[in-house]
Amino acid sequence: MELLTTNNVWMMICTALVFFMHLGFSLLEIGLTRQKNTINILFKNIFIITIGLLLYCVVGFNLMYPGDFNGFLGFAGFGLDSPLTAEGVLDLTYNEGYTYWTDFLFQGMFAATAATIVSGAVAERIKIVPFMIFTVIYVGFVYPIAGSWKWGGGFLQTLETPFYDFAGSTLVHSVGGWAAVVAVCLLGPRIGKFKEGKPQAIPGHNIPLATTGVLILWLGWFGFNGGSVLSADPGLTSLTLVTTCLAAAAGGVVAMLVSTAMYKNLDLTMFLNGILGGLVGITAGADQMSPTDAILIGAIAGALIVFAVSFIDKLKLDDPVGAIAVHLVCGIWGTLAVGIFGDLAGVDQFISQLIGVGAYAVFCIVTAFIIIFTLKKTVGIRVSEKEELEGLDAHEHGMDAYPDFRLNEH
Amino acid sequence: MELLTTNNVWMMICTALVFFMHLGFSLLEIGLTRQKNTINILFKNIFIITIGLLLYCVVGFNLMYPGDFNGFLGFAGFGLDSPLTAEGVLDLTYNEGYTYWTDFLFQGMFAATAATIVSGAVAERIKIVPFMIFTVIYVGFVYPIAGSWKWGGGFLQTLETPFYDFAGSTLVHSVGGWAAVVAVCLLGPRIGKFKEGKPQAIPGHNIPLATTGVLILWLGWFGFNGGSVLSADPGLTSLTLVTTCLAAAAGGVVAMLVSTAMYKNLDLTMFLNGILGGLVGITAGADQMSPTDAILIGAIAGALIVFAVSFIDKLKLDDPVGAIAVHLVCGIWGTLAVGIFGDLAGVDQFISQLIGVGAYAVFCIVTAFIIIFTLKKTVGIRVSEKEELEGLDAHEHGMDAYPDFRLNEH
Amino acid sequence: MELLTTNNVWMMICTALVFFMHLGFSLLEIGLTRQKNTINILFKNIFIITIGLLLYCVVGFNLMYPGDFNGFLGFAGFGLDSPLTAEGVLDLTYNEGYTYWTDFLFQGMFAATAATIVSGAVAERIKIVPFMIFTVIYVGFVYPIAGSWKWGGGFLQTLETPFYDFAGSTLVHSVGGWAAVVAVCLLGPRIGKFKEGKPQAIPGHNIPLATTGVLILWLGWFGFNGGSVLSADPGLTSLTLVTTCLAAAAGGVVAMLVSTAMYKNLDLTMFLNGILGGLVGITAGADQMSPTDAILIGAIAGALIVFAVSFIDKLKLDDPVGAIAVHLVCGIWGTLAVGIFGDLAGVDQFISQLIGVGAYAVFCIVTAFIIIFTLKKTVGIRVSEKEELEGLDAHEHGMDAYPDFRLNEH
Repeated sequence: MELLTTNNVWMMICTALVFFMHLGFSLLEIGLTRQKNTINILFKNIFIITIGLLLYCVVGFNLMYPGDFNGFLGFAGFGLDSPLTAEGVLDLTYNEGYTYWTDFLFQGMFAATAATIVSGAVAERIKIVPFMIFTVIYVGFVYPIAGSWKWGGGFLQTLETPFYDFAGSTLVHSVGGWAAVVAVCLLGPRIGKFKEGKPQAIPGHNIPLATTGVLILWLGWFGFNGGSVLSADPGLTSLTLVTTCLAAAAGGVVAMLVSTAMYKNLDLTMFLNGILGGLVGITAGADQMSPTDAILIGAIAGALIVFAVSFIDKLKLDDPVGAIAVHLVCGIWGTLAVGIFGDLAGVDQFISQLIGVGAYAVFCIVTAFIIIFTLKKTVGIRVSEKEELEGLDAHEHGMDAYPDFRLNEH
Repeated sequence: MELLTTNNVWMMICTALVFFMHLGFSLLEIGLTRQKNTINILFKNIFIITIGLLLYCVVGFNLMYPGDFNGFLGFAGFGLDSPLTAEGVLDLTYNEGYTYWTDFLFQGMFAATAATIVSGAVAERIKIVPFMIFTVIYVGFVYPIAGSWKWGGGFLQTLETPFYDFAGSTLVHSVGGWAAVVAVCLLGPRIGKFKEGKPQAIPGHNIPLATTGVLILWLGWFGFNGGSVLSADPGLTSLTLVTTCLAAAAGGVVAMLVSTAMYKNLDLTMFLNGILGGLVGITAGADQMSPTDAILIGAIAGALIVFAVSFIDKLKLDDPVGAIAVHLVCGIWGTLAVGIFGDLAGVDQFISQLIGVGAYAVFCIVTAFIIIFTLKKTVGIRVSEKEELEGLDAHEHGMDAYPDFRLNEH
Repeated sequence: MELLTTNNVWMMICTALVFFMHLGFSLLEIGLTRQKNTINILFKNIFIITIGLLLYCVVGFNLMYPGDFNGFLGFAGFGLDSPLTAEGVLDLTYNEGYTYWTDFLFQGMFAATAATIVSGAVAERIKIVPFMIFTVIYVGFVYPIAGSWKWGGGFLQTLETPFYDFAGSTLVHSVGGWAAVVAVCLLGPRIGKFKEGKPQAIPGHNIPLATTGVLILWLGWFGFNGGSVLSADPGLTSLTLVTTCLAAAAGGVVAMLVSTAMYKNLDLTMFLNGILGGLVGITAGADQMSPTDAILIGAIAGALIVFAVSFIDKLKLDDPVGAIAVHLVCGIWGTLAVGIFGDLAGVDQFISQLIGVGAYAVFCIVTAFIIIFTLKKTVGIRVSEKEELEGLDAHEHGMDAYPDFRLNEH
């Protein structure tokens, strides 16, 4: 009882920290885009966290944790159904690490994250209503079904060498990242992003808020990874926090050094994205790594970020906040790194990691394509040229983010 | 001892989260008002939290928890007086959920909240010194005396069917809300708010900060409601967090849907106020509700917000941040909802809830009126027209909030 | 085991809160300076936290806690070396308050703080690369060696009456503060700060962010002081939070009153710095004081801030954010206050406190001077006049903080 209470306190705090990541994502995203689309981005993010929690309550939790199932798709019924003792009170033997309610809320906070990742990639040009429809389907159904394959005890968990994804480099970050790729391809780049085939910088309008967002995300990762231990086990939780922070630090420093070497410029945005890359990279194996492993994984993620951002530009994909580089590229890297570094390293594990990465790639690309392509052919997904140039805030929301400030038009 | 340590850790964390709500209130309030009054609003909020803690130390705590008393007014003496064992160290048998010090600090963080609610409603036109005097009296005396009636074991606690207010829909939010109504009536609307009897929109100057404020408030509510369990009881705390978050989500989504239906506009401010309405609404019974109850309570609060904002406008009351709709209307709703939904529902309980709402209404309206009316007739409560038009920052503080930015005059 | 788990949860949360202080420092520093140097300041702060953690992993932790050593300088070897049981798992008997990993991470978060303090004082005119070199040496070597003298069990700990510094008024804040003094002297004031010998106000560009920074720092201090108990001991941790918050509140209110009396102006910046002064002041003895002691220590710190800011101006030292007044002056005050107030008060203790203050003064001034003077004579430490006038963001980073906003030149 004492131990359950302590474990549950830790898990509730981690839940709160993961919730707080939604502020981090929001600020990062608005900071790296133009002021004329700020309201729109905030509206999307507020929608994601609110509708995400409601959907996870109604269907998501029971899709993701269906109990015994075929390993691919199961559903334990609508709504929440807390286990009760014979006396009709909450059955605290549910799990030694947390109560039923904490389990739901912690997982619910994760669920919304996947759609938030997409939000960044499609910013400044997507129509709000189709994005809301996409969010409902992706958060309510695609994410929890995908999650059930591993965390719900599905087929990736029952492989001979089980696929391993501690806190979601693949299950959360890549799931969002793949959909971001699909959405960006179907949506096309922002007007003015590519001129004569060359990518143009479209500077973010509020770098202090973007930086605030990244530091809030780092803080949130204490809960994202620390809570994924699913108890307050002192050795595992504290090791996880150490590997998480060292990977973040190494990712940032290496991205900064590599981008300085390549572009002769002390680029703060790359520094920030390097931190996020390190965080995403360590997430799949944060409980399995030594500090040295963590620094290496983070450092490689940091370097990957710089090259990936440049490569994505070359592909003429317009990802305003670097979401694909951070969440997809580093998500894949982190997942594979579990087979290379740490306690599970080995050929069999590496193959299982590849299988996992592949399975999620196929499922997410296919489902995201079906949803977004259908939306494109029906209601349309892109705002008009006039609306894009004048900003989504004025057209979709009738509000300005900063009405007292004099602004530059661009 | 292990359990006390765990409980106390939880309560200290909740204390920190409630403290952090003061940042949330500050950012929400400046974000929804004009830049020319930003310093003034921040100054007020910083004053409230600092003087509020000092006053709660000197008089408030012992007014609110006087021990055995007549049920209406008691006072256990000035300052703090920690219980000691025979050996002269802190007596840890004080309470199994927290130490004496944690008890004081958690309650102290609540105390300042009531005045903060008023601050939002009177923004952009109240004189700073009278507001500071009001704060001292309201936080130092009115709030703790009102609180003693229920949380201090007073007459509302000893009703045959005791009045129930888990975390303060009435004791905190309505206590602030009633004073806000009185202050707004005595102060009058901002210049330009009503033209030919019609309310005019005065847009807030920094919506990213307002949104940040709301998400920080939601985070803080993990501590506000979660800590009101007064221990880390795993079942109760985790249920409380679930009901709190679901009500917030439902409040936001419903307010967004209703306001979109009514005004054909995806209004971010209404979305945000809907979240706050859901949070205030669930607060009175967050430990008593099922997830379904919580969603219903939040949803109704969300709808109420939209109608209340419009109704308050019709009454020609000028509440720049919607504090009355959020804290008073939803505070009353949440208090009554305890008699309608959840474990305590019933006619007797509903009547007790009505008695509680009525008792606080009378006490807060009368005391707030006496304080503010006296200030109005002596030092005056409203800044000059010139000062209001040019902004309180320049006149009361000699500072600009954003001196490097070029600003629009209005 | 239950108790270790609880203690470790508390220490991990405190670690997270101290991490979050780096956001507080960043926002405070950019808020109180001009927009044209915003990117530069954020870059420095992000560099400090990332490189600081990596250096503390590689050398700092083992310099600061070398085990048995001569009391002045010891080193337990490169990297981290977690204690293992015979079975090869983490030895949880390392300490009853936390695991080896938590110990490292909590202390690592402290380490970066010292350089952050310097960052504020040298803002708007220092070259970035020399600052980065300084950071590496100061965080990686000077801070941990200095820390070993007391927290690592060195000569100040083994005095007959041991020097006492609970959470670092001297070990963290003065260590940063002394280096700030040296750096400011070697660097000279910003262009335009002194005209005909008189100090000119250079207003900070974003007071909402500065205020946010201060409230985040206050929140972080729950972890900074609360975690310095090194366990979740209910009596000590909760007393520490109470004294911390009361000192902050008293510092703010007194600084506000004194500055209003002196300058006839309700100065928000002084209010904020008074809060920080109170926090720094209580830090050396937060676990030793009664609430009354804490209020007195905070109040004196608040008054000191007002006079110190004015005195530093008179010395023609240009400290854009008031770092010397807050961290050095109040750091010294807080350290001496341990000999005047609270459980340890006495002549012997006061003398030990003086010895400690003096030892750190000599060591920090000498090492900071050697580092910064060497940098000045080699690579140079000050940007060109053109660069300073046009802003460091454009020249050192090729980025604007707010490209969509129209700005005033100054």
